[in-house]
Amino acid sequence: MNRTELISQIRAKKSFLCVGLDTDPNLLPKHLSKDADGVLAFNKAIVEATSDLAVSYKVNTAFFEAMGKTGWEILHETFKLIPKSCLSIADAKRGDIGNTSNQYARAFFDEMDADALTLAPYMGLDSIQPFMGRKEKWGIVLGLTSNPGSADFEQQRLESGEFMYERVISTFGKAFSADELMFVIGATKPEQFKSIRGIVPNHFFLVPGVGAQGGRLSEVCKFGLTDDIGLLINSSRGIIYASSEMDFAERARAEALKLQKEMASYL
Amino acid sequence: MNRTELISQIRAKKSFLCVGLDTDPNLLPKHLSKDADGVLAFNKAIVEATSDLAVSYKVNTAFFEAMGKTGWEILHETFKLIPKSCLSIADAKRGDIGNTSNQYARAFFDEMDADALTLAPYMGLDSIQPFMGRKEKWGIVLGLTSNPGSADFEQQRLESGEFMYERVISTFGKAFSADELMFVIGATKPEQFKSIRGIVPNHFFLVPGVGAQGGRLSEVCKFGLTDDIGLLINSSRGIIYASSEMDFAERARAEALKLQKEMASYL
Repeated sequence: MNRTELISQIRAKKSFLCVGLDTDPNLLPKHLSKDADGVLAFNKAIVEATSDLAVSYKVNTAFFEAMGKTGWEILHETFKLIPKSCLSIADAKRGDIGNTSNQYARAFFDEMDADALTLAPYMGLDSIQPFMGRKEKWGIVLGLTSNPGSADFEQQRLESGEFMYERVISTFGKAFSADELMFVIGATKPEQFKSIRGIVPNHFFLVPGVGAQGGRLSEVCKFGLTDDIGLLINSSRGIIYASSEMDFAERARAEALKLQKEMASYL
Repeated sequence: MNRTELISQIRAKKSFLCVGLDTDPNLLPKHLSKDADGVLAFNKAIVEATSDLAVSYKVNTAFFEAMGKTGWEILHETFKLIPKSCLSIADAKRGDIGNTSNQYARAFFDEMDADALTLAPYMGLDSIQPFMGRKEKWGIVLGLTSNPGSADFEQQRLESGEFMYERVISTFGKAFSADELMFVIGATKPEQFKSIRGIVPNHFFLVPGVGAQGGRLSEVCKFGLTDDIGLLINSSRGIIYASSEMDFAERARAEALKLQKEMASYL
């Protein structure tokens, strides 16, 4: 999916919601089996119940890898459930030397046919280069995350005065265009969002961890929205685990609808 | 495998060689099929031909993921080929928020039964914590890599005067003991090895990219060896692709033997 299509989906659905499939077999509704069949039935029901409200699905690959040797196959099957009109993201945080990153690009873009892949920046530009230049595919580089550990390295100040996360964002933002690169921005303070938008005015941000509560969505939109929207807001557990009963898909839809309505009000 | 066992294996074999299984179906010897059977036959032959000379195997997970939906199963099967007397390393460079890192730890330590897993540090201490405190399991955090891109962030100087990679190494080195944590150190300059050894005098270093040529092994040993050895030196392509003919396993053994002999001379 290219940038024009993504923006057009957002405008049509009045939504920049990304639903996170962090599917844990142990948290499935009681009537589903805690195995591959249960996980796929769950993912299918969630996608069907929300795909007119969401423009993207983010699949957390760790949960599939933890399912053992069949996990990767279930992951492939999950990607097939996502409609082509939605941006499919593999949240896998890969990144390695060129030869190895090439293999990861093949794994996710060619074999799995994901539209986008999250990437870890530590090893530098040449570790991310192999994911770029692929038609209608996206790399989503970790910029500033919202976990407490982001203080350890991301928020360290460089000799130049910049924070490390600012250097990461400016380095990749200069090297790769807003047509193929996004950033994961989980900033906890509105000022950070504002300053990051100043560094990369056009790139999309994938923002995790925004629930329906607390007014955080409005703050993120205040500083993050651009003329081309520029935001994908992810919600995982708040949507997919809204109920552990038979009504889990309806309840997931209800939670997605709340977020979509709030998003529509900002567009 | 715990630290005492690892050191005792190194002393017994007079080797701190780690063989890297970066198995690419397209680079298999001509007589093997370019599929799962060929990859497993290749890995089995390489392990059997080298397991008295190596103390560790590092499996590059990207190559298996690139094989498509059966890749993860072949990866599991490859781990079963590694003798319990050798440290098995999943080179997967994982790291994420706690809940997700927990899933990765389950995937690699419990489901795959790998002894060790390489980890990406960008998201900070709390992203690595879930991999720690597991009996006889190891996390191997990226410290300083040898690709040109290491200049982009790893070798940036902080306001404090330290390089970022020094901050990463000291932060993790203080938080987690040499019984459960190693570092990936691919330093290209001997001075860097010396200064890093000063920061973490006891932790093992996993050193990639050392071939039989160029005297680099002697330099790494000069600055990296400790009383408890403290080094695992990886060689991948130089060993496993020494020949693409019927004699590939013999030739792999011959290359491993060259490195083992040189290592014995430094012990």
